[in-house]
Amino acid sequence: MSTDDPLSLHRQELRRGTVVLACLSVLRTPAYGYALLETLEDLGLHVDANTLYPLLRRLEAQGLLDSEWNTDDARPRKFYRCTPEGQQVLAGLRAEWAELVSAVERTTQEDR
Amino acid sequence: MSTDDPLSLHRQELRRGTVVLACLSVLRTPAYGYALLETLEDLGLHVDANTLYPLLRRLEAQGLLDSEWNTDDARPRKFYRCTPEGQQVLAGLRAEWAELVSAVERTTQEDR
Repeated sequence: MSTDDPLSLHRQELRRGTVVLACLSVLRTPAYGYALLETLEDLGLHVDANTLYPLLRRLEAQGLLDSEWNTDDARPRKFYRCTPEGQQVLAGLRAEWAELVSAVERTTQEDR
Repeated sequence: MSTDDPLSLHRQELRRGTVVLACLSVLRTPAYGYALLETLEDLGLHVDANTLYPLLRRLEAQGLLDSEWNTDDARPRKFYRCTPEGQQVLAGLRAEWAELVSAVERTTQEDR
């Protein structure tokens, strides 16, 4: 299915918002980009690296993540971690998410 | 809270994708814009009219909704309805949504 048919477009849009929630949630434990990508994949959230890396930089610019280079390995890696502000935003997003889940549930249940 | 703080931005992004799902779901029964807005509000999905009306036109352009003028009342109203193609997209979005709900649930449960 092409990426610009309506279903693909709207699925992407549906998924996009959850990626921030999932990143903040996972990054309460520091991780580098590729490890995060794999964790998200394991959780059932496929995200392109081309989407994830700019998102991480955006979340860092917003103060929701901070990062640190780990040079213990031969190849230095940038580890991201959720900041206290990020944890506050995470709590807000989880509350919003719970409301959305209920709302969507109601649209399904409505006997129309 | 201002509308450009990170939490508001990400909450909006989280909500945006669900609005299409909810509109298609509700519009299996024809409704005009303002009635749809009220139904969404009742379901717990606040959407601005300035967001909803362009979205309806966009969904119509994609073939997921069609519309018809109802002139029975003094004031003619444009009724939107989910097309068969829209119902297919709705089914796909619901499947995606169910996966996302499980995935987000797992990020919450992870013992990190």
